Amino acid sequence: MAERLASWADTPTREAILSFIDRVAHGPDAVPEAERVAVFDNDGTLWTEKPMPTQLHYIVEQWKQQAAADPSLAEKQPYRAAVTGDFAWLGGALDRHYQGDDTDLKLLIGAVVGVTDGMSVEDYAASVSRFYEEAKHLTLGTPYADAVYAPMIELLRELEANGFTVYLVSGGERDFMRPMTEQYYGIPPERVIGSALGLRFDEDSGEVRYTAGLDFFDDGPEKPVRIWSRIGRRPLLAGGNSNGDLSMLGYARAGGGLALLVHHDDDSGRGDAPYDAGAERALAEASDRGITVVSVKRDWSRIFPEG
Amino acid sequence: MAERLASWADTPTREAILSFIDRVAHGPDAVPEAERVAVFDNDGTLWTEKPMPTQLHYIVEQWKQQAAADPSLAEKQPYRAAVTGDFAWLGGALDRHYQGDDTDLKLLIGAVVGVTDGMSVEDYAASVSRFYEEAKHLTLGTPYADAVYAPMIELLRELEANGFTVYLVSGGERDFMRPMTEQYYGIPPERVIGSALGLRFDEDSGEVRYTAGLDFFDDGPEKPVRIWSRIGRRPLLAGGNSNGDLSMLGYARAGGGLALLVHHDDDSGRGDAPYDAGAERALAEASDRGITVVSVKRDWSRIFPEG
Repeated sequence: MAERLASWADTPTREAILSFIDRVAHGPDAVPEAERVAVFDNDGTLWTEKPMPTQLHYIVEQWKQQAAADPSLAEKQPYRAAVTGDFAWLGGALDRHYQGDDTDLKLLIGAVVGVTDGMSVEDYAASVSRFYEEAKHLTLGTPYADAVYAPMIELLRELEANGFTVYLVSGGERDFMRPMTEQYYGIPPERVIGSALGLRFDEDSGEVRYTAGLDFFDDGPEKPVRIWSRIGRRPLLAGGNSNGDLSMLGYARAGGGLALLVHHDDDSGRGDAPYDAGAERALAEASDRGITVVSVKRDWSRIFPEG
Repeated sequence: MAERLASWADTPTREAILSFIDRVAHGPDAVPEAERVAVFDNDGTLWTEKPMPTQLHYIVEQWKQQAAADPSLAEKQPYRAAVTGDFAWLGGALDRHYQGDDTDLKLLIGAVVGVTDGMSVEDYAASVSRFYEEAKHLTLGTPYADAVYAPMIELLRELEANGFTVYLVSGGERDFMRPMTEQYYGIPPERVIGSALGLRFDEDSGEVRYTAGLDFFDDGPEKPVRIWSRIGRRPLLAGGNSNGDLSMLGYARAGGGLALLVHHDDDSGRGDAPYDAGAERALAEASDRGITVVSVKRDWSRIFPEG
């Protein structure tokens, strides 16, 4: 039998996770299988979000193509950042959002929406699938399939082996994740919850198409709302890595569930450079809220899958 | 081996349904199992919606309790209709909506929202569950569990036996259906799509609660939008019974799927009195749109489960 959570170091964190799983899946306190629901954030929780979330990389490629077709675009943000490769400006937009400044996030969302406006959901899925086939992670140089966190993938499999059903609950755009989640995480499209672009049904073509708006941003207190809307159950386990996951972690905790917060504190050079940006409040409140902090440095013996 | 679709008469409709299932589940044209998604409307499709949708019955009971506590409510609609048992006024509100007059529907929605405003989703589920345990159908006199259409329940099981995953896609309110769909239809809460009350996360209690608004009404072109949002796949089979299902039926047809329209034409006294109200356009356009009409009179040998 393969070792459980083989890429996790033998620490109290690993022990706490396995004890929890054993308790709710077996023995006198077992929870019915249908109620064993686990939810995980995506960027920074299941795969790296550095140097910038994968979705931004995709969008940058689209903006470069748009600016090549219309050079006047290259004069303004965010197209200028895309053309000049100013990843710092782009990657910082989400950090600035978590620090309370939404200016650049709104600029980004507007241009994001411009990429898909009027497109059918199938055409977008095909475009995104091509990106995942061709793109290389900007610093690792690997396909994005190898930019996932091996310990977390093992945790997904461990949960499934114990009767859990796993959902993604991300601030990232839902339909950008769906084309890869089955292959990367073993999570099918119907279990992907995320921010949503507006949609309309085009009666003439029989296609569902994107509108020029954002329907909702799946972050913070919106996450428990979307979990209930989609699943109709409270999760028994929730995993995240940022302030935007705190409500979802609290939702699981209020029902006696396990809440995990991945802390990017690894300075060994094995993975992402350490960062707390966007997770300051979550880290400060974790102990009081009964949230289990997962230290990348101490609790993971390996970060990325073996090459 | 049990006969397939035993409560269906031996007609071309039954044959068309079985041929379609056999073709997409077996043989050279088989569709991958993950893509075998079937969606069904609820009221008038899987169970009777006469003399009025079950949800109205529940709401009427709540309004009667509210009017008993505050007699001034009994002077105005819809509480007056609830107290005096004016089911015609109540049942007609949805018909009038389909005929283009939303006045009474809005009155109803406002009072519906008043029942749940501030309530936690768990408390509402408990209240609804008690209703299903105690209530009797207003004309059949049976529990609502026996007001389902036996031929359609058989169809759900036949689809599942051939690798389909079945979803409810109803104009009815989602969380009113969830407490019964597993028992009545074998459909778990995560596969129930319907109209949604507004929700918010209450950080203090860790509960998801209803707001005083409707998030969206899941009818007409909203149905394909909600199907994509929730499932991320186009359905291979869709079943409905009214004009509000036409977009969803068209969505399935545009992908080469099977679309079924239940026509309430039975005048034998075995089930609902015949009605076309709210389905006029769907019935008129069915043939041109490639929609298969299911005649309750000719295609079903039995309507309700054996008592």
